[in-house]
Amino acid sequence: MSRILTLTTDFGISDGYVAAMKGVVLNCMPEARIVDITHQVPPQDIVAGAFAMYCACPFFPEGSVHVGVVDPGVGSDRRGIVVETEKFVYVGPDNGLFSPVYEREVVRRIVAIENTALMRPQVSSTFHGRDVFVLVGTYLLKGIPCDEVGPEIGDPVTCDLWGVEEHADALVGRVVCVDHFGNAISMIARAQIDAKYPDGDFEIAIGKTRFDRVCQTYSEVKEGEALALYGSLDTLEIAVCGGSASRTLGIKRGDEICVFRGQGRRDRS
Amino acid sequence: MSRILTLTTDFGISDGYVAAMKGVVLNCMPEARIVDITHQVPPQDIVAGAFAMYCACPFFPEGSVHVGVVDPGVGSDRRGIVVETEKFVYVGPDNGLFSPVYEREVVRRIVAIENTALMRPQVSSTFHGRDVFVLVGTYLLKGIPCDEVGPEIGDPVTCDLWGVEEHADALVGRVVCVDHFGNAISMIARAQIDAKYPDGDFEIAIGKTRFDRVCQTYSEVKEGEALALYGSLDTLEIAVCGGSASRTLGIKRGDEICVFRGQGRRDRS
Amino acid sequence: MSRILTLTTDFGISDGYVAAMKGVVLNCMPEARIVDITHQVPPQDIVAGAFAMYCACPFFPEGSVHVGVVDPGVGSDRRGIVVETEKFVYVGPDNGLFSPVYEREVVRRIVAIENTALMRPQVSSTFHGRDVFVLVGTYLLKGIPCDEVGPEIGDPVTCDLWGVEEHADALVGRVVCVDHFGNAISMIARAQIDAKYPDGDFEIAIGKTRFDRVCQTYSEVKEGEALALYGSLDTLEIAVCGGSASRTLGIKRGDEICVFRGQGRRDRS
Repeated sequence: MSRILTLTTDFGISDGYVAAMKGVVLNCMPEARIVDITHQVPPQDIVAGAFAMYCACPFFPEGSVHVGVVDPGVGSDRRGIVVETEKFVYVGPDNGLFSPVYEREVVRRIVAIENTALMRPQVSSTFHGRDVFVLVGTYLLKGIPCDEVGPEIGDPVTCDLWGVEEHADALVGRVVCVDHFGNAISMIARAQIDAKYPDGDFEIAIGKTRFDRVCQTYSEVKEGEALALYGSLDTLEIAVCGGSASRTLGIKRGDEICVFRGQGRRDRS
Repeated sequence: MSRILTLTTDFGISDGYVAAMKGVVLNCMPEARIVDITHQVPPQDIVAGAFAMYCACPFFPEGSVHVGVVDPGVGSDRRGIVVETEKFVYVGPDNGLFSPVYEREVVRRIVAIENTALMRPQVSSTFHGRDVFVLVGTYLLKGIPCDEVGPEIGDPVTCDLWGVEEHADALVGRVVCVDHFGNAISMIARAQIDAKYPDGDFEIAIGKTRFDRVCQTYSEVKEGEALALYGSLDTLEIAVCGGSASRTLGIKRGDEICVFRGQGRRDRS
Repeated sequence: MSRILTLTTDFGISDGYVAAMKGVVLNCMPEARIVDITHQVPPQDIVAGAFAMYCACPFFPEGSVHVGVVDPGVGSDRRGIVVETEKFVYVGPDNGLFSPVYEREVVRRIVAIENTALMRPQVSSTFHGRDVFVLVGTYLLKGIPCDEVGPEIGDPVTCDLWGVEEHADALVGRVVCVDHFGNAISMIARAQIDAKYPDGDFEIAIGKTRFDRVCQTYSEVKEGEALALYGSLDTLEIAVCGGSASRTLGIKRGDEICVFRGQGRRDRS
């Protein structure tokens, strides 16, 4: 039985807000182990929060509860939800923050948070992270079943950035993150590419730029030159050796990346 | 028995200093659980440190030890103190850092830190956080009684920012924090206002600005308009919807906020 | 048996990378206790990483495992190493990051990391922190002996900044860190100076500046004046009261500091 609860927010680390959430967790479950994913998500940037969670959450032990609070709609009528997958439980606002989870994990069920007995007695209109989400998360960590939280729902809010479409002649994904080095990261997995092009004959296109191979390391091209490689998530990434792919190639979040059948260049070369 | 020790400092997170304190705690009590409130208190800003602690400490389990180190007087003859309240133990310099505690909690006793057996063998003149405060805090967490730390004192340093005065015709408090959104936060609690004006007929004044009601959410007024509301601490806060109350209204820390009997406007409207 | 694993990196705290490493640790050893030294080491600044570790690691309980990842050579053929000392185990790249350890601790042995059974099944070329170092560190924390990690080596990469040379007539060290106050910190320990000059008759030279005594506190000299004192590591430090020694005296990392036999001034004064 995991006792781990992770936290991802856009609250920053200068105020006492994150610690207030931790106090609520420990008050309810003194043996809980709290791990910060990050609290430096750019304010209200749901996609960036989703990406930070995606980079870290899968590495945690099965049964961990992942609470995410990037919540521009707090105080409005946006739902709070719990997403139970084969490995984890996610808790947070229903605003697309868990979109990568829907794409990448086997979802068992999604419920709306309605049971006020699992919330703090007085729920503020500005701080559901403390008054709702971490407390629901802690109860779930303690073993309360999902269906005590609220009714099942079938229509969570999603963001189509995260999907990879498989067409007859191509895999089509998008840039989900430009990291602080200027690398453009997609969700197109090495495994997907290997499955579709087992002979390794494919090309990659982003904007007007083409790549006919995936490098192992940055140093395979010259300083200032662009390359494609599999990053630390084992997904396709566009980089510039010793520079910024985003600046050099004008790439931004949401841009399309295509992997299509090569023209036999590999054989010619 | 709580095993939780929290840390609030102005040391930042770039150096190894905070971790050195954690090492000292764990060396003395391997099973201690250390939680950061924040280490981003602006350098030597005692009031900001006090506010960060006030936002987070009350949410922790009873028996937690809260160590605060915002300590411009380190190396001088300022005292170190332990404040024991009905719920918690606070440890740090006697410079006003625990002022909100004196206002908001039932204090059992305050002692000066004098017992050198509870300090590191060699106390540096610049780092009492590591050599004195966390170690005293850890011994208290392990169950050493307060009176072994040093003699009781009755005159801790306070800062009058934190009090709310009740006059016959008004509650008078001060802005204790302008947060990074520009919201001006006071210590005037919803409960105090409700008790004094059970009919809800009151007005709020800050500088030349008047409010005749407390909103539930920011969105009750138009973008750019000022409002009063109860914030996440359930105390009175002045905000500007989608803007900065501090900038728009010229509010700064220490400014007076008054809640006085209304003139029946509520009934006229 | 310690269960503590510390982390020092230059990854920053905005992304999910540090948390991914923590997930890997907890997946392998759910009862491990992870403590951050810092993740704000300036990118690829090995000396700064070494200094942060040196400020904090010695304060941890015996048996703690210290993982450091400041790793400009990731993906190249630089070695990964484990350094076992009398008190601790260090894990990270062999690039000088553990230089202070070689100077200050009794080293039992150093091994190269080669056993792939102690790494993640797929090792990325850009993130050995997650795929190699923390996992090796966790296995060592669980009790796997050092010699299962790889063959012993005798030539770890070092950086001569950290040594203090003892000459017949002087102790010679270097500035290893200019901290954010502009203080210039050396590794020349109070104990070394006391041993060499038991009568206290010595002078200190840095550039063209001379000091004929070591102060107890900043306030022993006037505002704006330079002084020598023993800092929080109990090593020699050059500071300017209320100012920056680095700026005022033009000191930078690597500058030589000498402690030599005094000319009897102490007796004359």
